[in-house]
Amino acid sequence: MRSVYWEDNELKLIDQRSLPGHFELLAYRDHNSVARAIKDMVVRGAPAIGATAAFGLAIAANESTAVSVPDLLVDLRNAAAVLKSARPTAVNLAWAVDRLTRVAAAHKGSADDIRAALLQEAQRLADEDVAINKAMAKHGAALIDDGDTIIHHCNTGALATVDWGTALGVIRTAHEQGKYIHVLVDETRPRLQGARLTAWELEQYGISYEIITDNMSGYFLKAGKAQKVLFGADRVAANGDVANKIGTYMLALAAHDNNVPVYAVVPTPTIDLSLANGNLIPIEERDSDEVLGIQFHGQPIAPKNARARNPAFDVTPQRLLSGIVTENGVAAPPFEASLKKMVKSNQHEHL
Amino acid sequence: MRSVYWEDNELKLIDQRSLPGHFELLAYRDHNSVARAIKDMVVRGAPAIGATAAFGLAIAANESTAVSVPDLLVDLRNAAAVLKSARPTAVNLAWAVDRLTRVAAAHKGSADDIRAALLQEAQRLADEDVAINKAMAKHGAALIDDGDTIIHHCNTGALATVDWGTALGVIRTAHEQGKYIHVLVDETRPRLQGARLTAWELEQYGISYEIITDNMSGYFLKAGKAQKVLFGADRVAANGDVANKIGTYMLALAAHDNNVPVYAVVPTPTIDLSLANGNLIPIEERDSDEVLGIQFHGQPIAPKNARARNPAFDVTPQRLLSGIVTENGVAAPPFEASLKKMVKSNQHEHL
Repeated sequence: MRSVYWEDNELKLIDQRSLPGHFELLAYRDHNSVARAIKDMVVRGAPAIGATAAFGLAIAANESTAVSVPDLLVDLRNAAAVLKSARPTAVNLAWAVDRLTRVAAAHKGSADDIRAALLQEAQRLADEDVAINKAMAKHGAALIDDGDTIIHHCNTGALATVDWGTALGVIRTAHEQGKYIHVLVDETRPRLQGARLTAWELEQYGISYEIITDNMSGYFLKAGKAQKVLFGADRVAANGDVANKIGTYMLALAAHDNNVPVYAVVPTPTIDLSLANGNLIPIEERDSDEVLGIQFHGQPIAPKNARARNPAFDVTPQRLLSGIVTENGVAAPPFEASLKKMVKSNQHEHL
Repeated sequence: MRSVYWEDNELKLIDQRSLPGHFELLAYRDHNSVARAIKDMVVRGAPAIGATAAFGLAIAANESTAVSVPDLLVDLRNAAAVLKSARPTAVNLAWAVDRLTRVAAAHKGSADDIRAALLQEAQRLADEDVAINKAMAKHGAALIDDGDTIIHHCNTGALATVDWGTALGVIRTAHEQGKYIHVLVDETRPRLQGARLTAWELEQYGISYEIITDNMSGYFLKAGKAQKVLFGADRVAANGDVANKIGTYMLALAAHDNNVPVYAVVPTPTIDLSLANGNLIPIEERDSDEVLGIQFHGQPIAPKNARARNPAFDVTPQRLLSGIVTENGVAAPPFEASLKKMVKSNQHEHL
């Protein structure tokens, strides 16, 4: 089962806000609601956001009452802007919307032909995401040793993608290859995607794990209790700097300080060669309620008037990374050259 | 008002588990309950634990029905073992109990004279803690610049001591000197002492603050948004390695990576010259419920069968510290020599 899929003329999404307590599917028939679902994190994870936005643009084409192609393209341009503004950091969102927009603009048929072509392209993008994840997982699993304990940040599994996963996909494939893996699951404050979603997935895959608070990974790395660190990414700059869920930078620092290899697992659509380095990646700051809204023993965790900050991502400098796993192989330092090669080989194969 | 004090023949403690929602005082009249209060973290913070244990031994002397001095000393030895085993990492606990045990053993009077002497010594230790904190705060405040944003981990204020605080004491004194200070308060998972206790204290002192999750400090340090990092300690080894609340190591790493000064604020009773380095400090692992027992949107944060790890402290290597602030001055690297001097100057002045 996919976390993002098209069925009965609707986009279906697993509501990731209510897991692991409740499993609920939500259905979408208009692009504004799709944009809101991305913003409110019904769906999250860069690849899943990309696929969702692609279906969102296909929905917008269906919503449009335009008869002529130029009128349809105007409606699509407006819908594309709404979808792209839902969240700023994951480049997959803009990448997917731009890909469908190009298909529409280049199409020679009628407005209805374009509508059909967009839905087909969204479906193709979603299918490709699964294939990309499987290819990444194979490259990444070769880096994992039997008996490894792996620290994993946020959620990068089937829920963060269309299916299979990026970093968690590597772990799944290594597990399927018969390697014994134990995962230390960063709970990933503030929204607890690790404790809520990654633990839920690992339960289903029968992979051994324990949850830790994010600030504990340094302890386990220093004690020699973890052999690898894996995470995904929301955007990778041309020099290899990686924007990912808040906390990734400190995790990578702690691994680096203890000579533990650190791998980002990243499909090429997440690589943004237009940005020279990570300082240029826009970092979303979300509502402070996400930080303050948990309960401790049923009580609020802070005084009534407390305020909080909530940057949702940080940038891990490329110097802390051992490699960047893509569907076309593992990019090694210096990343400027190796990433270019990965993206190029992608264009060669797929275009 | 003190967080640990003697009144009406009882030990009074602020119940720190229910703050900031409820302010409640608990009273203790037997040493087993005092040990349990330390274990259950009714009271926490190395200096506060030390003072509490001192009163606990004075209570044990009152509880004892011994008539002869040797019989009383046997009862005290047993009570001392109970109190010292409540928590392993903070050395102040053993230090305080040993100090009172020595007073009892050296006393030349009757059993009742010893009872009176122990209560007096516990009171003196508590008074000294306040004086030590004020002296530390003055040394530390000299390191703080007007306009500094300070990242602070866990709670090190009046609640963690008898009164005033260690790292938070420095912040309070700098604030009273008229320096504008903004504090980024690490929430400090799993028990959220930062969000619950430090924020509550800062509200009362009128000091500007914002709460962040522990994994965000790297983001703010890298962005140049914090000028100092301050925390307390539960035990400092002879070489300057510092055991403190889990997460301190990763915070210090992130500060070091961005050339931001890092200071541990530590009364000399927290310095354990008998341990050559931090690897020898015992690290308590607490119940996994502390990690899993928070709620997100009123729901459990992990699958029903999830397990968690919960090391309560980590060790920050001395190479990451800019200085260790004590009541006798600021120890600078190399710490082996400077810490010895701080402890020696203490014996000279106080004994």
